[in-house]
Amino acid sequence: MAKTDLTEREVTGILKRRFESKPKLPLGFDDDVAAFPMSRRRLVVLKTDMLVGRTDVPPGMTLGQAARKAVVATVSDFAAKGVQPRGLLVALGLPPPVRLAKVLEIASGLAEGAREYDCRIIGGDTSETDDLVIDCIGFGFSETGKILRRDGARPGDIVAVTGDFGRTAAGLLILLGKKNPWPRRFSKLVSSVLHPSAKLQAGLKLAETRFVNCSIDSSDGLAWSLHEIARLSHVNIVLETIPVAPDAKVFAREKGLVPEELALFGGEEYELVLAIKKDRFSRVSRRIPSLRRIGNVEKGSGDVIASFGGGFSKVEPRGYQHFT
Amino acid sequence: MAKTDLTEREVTGILKRRFESKPKLPLGFDDDVAAFPMSRRRLVVLKTDMLVGRTDVPPGMTLGQAARKAVVATVSDFAAKGVQPRGLLVALGLPPPVRLAKVLEIASGLAEGAREYDCRIIGGDTSETDDLVIDCIGFGFSETGKILRRDGARPGDIVAVTGDFGRTAAGLLILLGKKNPWPRRFSKLVSSVLHPSAKLQAGLKLAETRFVNCSIDSSDGLAWSLHEIARLSHVNIVLETIPVAPDAKVFAREKGLVPEELALFGGEEYELVLAIKKDRFSRVSRRIPSLRRIGNVEKGSGDVIASFGGGFSKVEPRGYQHFT
Repeated sequence: MAKTDLTEREVTGILKRRFESKPKLPLGFDDDVAAFPMSRRRLVVLKTDMLVGRTDVPPGMTLGQAARKAVVATVSDFAAKGVQPRGLLVALGLPPPVRLAKVLEIASGLAEGAREYDCRIIGGDTSETDDLVIDCIGFGFSETGKILRRDGARPGDIVAVTGDFGRTAAGLLILLGKKNPWPRRFSKLVSSVLHPSAKLQAGLKLAETRFVNCSIDSSDGLAWSLHEIARLSHVNIVLETIPVAPDAKVFAREKGLVPEELALFGGEEYELVLAIKKDRFSRVSRRIPSLRRIGNVEKGSGDVIASFGGGFSKVEPRGYQHFT
Repeated sequence: MAKTDLTEREVTGILKRRFESKPKLPLGFDDDVAAFPMSRRRLVVLKTDMLVGRTDVPPGMTLGQAARKAVVATVSDFAAKGVQPRGLLVALGLPPPVRLAKVLEIASGLAEGAREYDCRIIGGDTSETDDLVIDCIGFGFSETGKILRRDGARPGDIVAVTGDFGRTAAGLLILLGKKNPWPRRFSKLVSSVLHPSAKLQAGLKLAETRFVNCSIDSSDGLAWSLHEIARLSHVNIVLETIPVAPDAKVFAREKGLVPEELALFGGEEYELVLAIKKDRFSRVSRRIPSLRRIGNVEKGSGDVIASFGGGFSKVEPRGYQHFT
C-alpha cells in the first residue's frame, strides 16, 4: 500500500468528520450501529456491513457460509447494543457468470443466518459486480437510555468479555495455509472462521440488566475494541489477563506463535467486550455464565495497559486488517 | 451472456420467492421499498440501492456525481411511495489506491444529495473492493394506508407521469459516444444523466391527496414501470400517448432513432408513474403542475397496450439494462 493510500478506518474517519454534525444523534458515528429518534424515547437502530469476496471470504469458505457470515457480522453489532434485529435487507453484488446454483446457495446462507437470530429478510437489491459483495443491512428498535453504548465506561467498572479469543486468528492462518485436511484437533479453530456466531442472546440479556455501562463487539479484534472503549469513554483500561482460547494456545505453541498476539490482534471474532458496574458484576455474571472478567477501567486518557506477570506494558492500538 | 446466466431481475425473483413468506409484510418484495410495522399503524420504510462503477457510472461522470446519483436513486424510491427519507447510511466499496481527494469528492457528492432531499447521513461502512460500490440505504416513516403502492391500480384510473421521457437514454448515448464536447442544444440530455433528480416533492404531495391508487418510480424505464403496475395490480394499461421529451425527439431524428423507443426503454429517469382516481385527476393535477396524463387503466391480465395513430400494439415488457 502506497503512503498516500488511506485505510478503511481513515476513510470512515473522514466521512465521520464530514457528516457527524448537529443536531446530535443518539449514538456517535463511531458506535457499532447508527440510531435515529422515532419519538421522544424510541429509536430506530440501523447497521450496514459490507462483506467483500477478496477481503472477507477466505479460501475454504463456501458461498453459503459467506452469506451466513454477512448476516452474523451485522447481527453482532446489534448484539453489542443489546438490540434485537427485526429485519434485514441484502444488497447483493454478483460477478458474472451468475448461475442459479450460486444464487440458491447464497439465499440458503442468508436464510440460515436470519433464522438463527430470529430476524426476517424483507428486501434487497441485486447488481453485477467484479467480485462478490454482500451488504447486509439490519434494523431494529430500542430506547434512549437502554441501548448499550461504546462511550460509557467509567473508572471503577469491570472489563469483561463473553468468551475466549484467538480462535479466528488461528483458524484463518490454517485456511490461508490451504493445508486441507487440517488436524482434527484444530477443527474448532477453522469452524470459528467458517461458521462464526453472534452473541445476540448475551447482548439482549446484558441490556436488560441496566448495569452495563459500555459495550462493543470485537469484530475488529480485542485490542482494537478495548482501545475504542478507552478512546471514546476517555478512560484507561488495565488488563489483568488476556483471555486466550485453550485450543488457540495449543496451535500457537505448535507453530511458534505468541498466543496473546492471536487473541489481541485477530478479528472477526464476534464476542462482546464490556464495562460493567463493579458492585453489580457478580449479579450480571450469574445471568451470563460465559462472562469472563479481564480487567478494570481506570481514570486516564485512552490507554490500554497490560498489567500482569509483574510488569506493565501498553497494548498497541492495532486492529485486525483484512487478509489481502 | 451465456444462456445459463441469470439477469439481475431473475436473481431478485429467486430471492423474492425464497424470502417473501408469512406473515405478510405491508408491501410486497416487488415494491420500490421495503416496509415493516413499528406499531399498529406506523411503518418503518427502508431501501437499499447499490451503485456499481462498471454498470452505473458512464464515461464523463465524476465520482462526486456518481455519489450524488446513488443518493438520488434511493430517494426516488421514497418519492414513489410518498415518504420523506429521514436519513441515509452509505456502505462504500473503494478500489485501491484510495486517495484522499477521491474520498472527499465522494463525501461532497453524498452531502449534496442528502442536502437536496433534506435527509441526513447517519452512518455507514467502508470496504476495499475491485470496483467502486456505493450502497445507499435510506429510511423513513409512514403509515399503512398512506404509503403509495405498486399494486393498487384499478380499472377506470387515469395513468399519469410527472414529466417527459427519453432524455436519459439520449444522454447516455451521447456520453457513450465519448464525443466531448457535445452540441450545446443537447446539454440538457447529458445533464439528465450526470445530474438526475428525484421527484420527492411531487411524491409527498401525491401521497397527501389520498387519490393516488398506484405509484412506481421509472428508474427501470417507462415500459418496465407500466408493466410492473399492470402485472402487480392485475390490470391492463392502455397508453394514449408516449411522453417523449422534445429535445430527445430532436436528438432521435438527427440520429435516425425512434423517439418512442428512447422514452419507453431508457432508464434511470427518476420520474413517477401513477394511477390516479379518474374523478379526482383534475384536482390532483392542479397540485402537481408537471403531471401529464398518458393513458387509462382497464380490466385485463397485465398487458400494456399502445392505442394511438389508429391502431393497437402491445408494448414489450423490456426494461432498461445497464450499459455494460
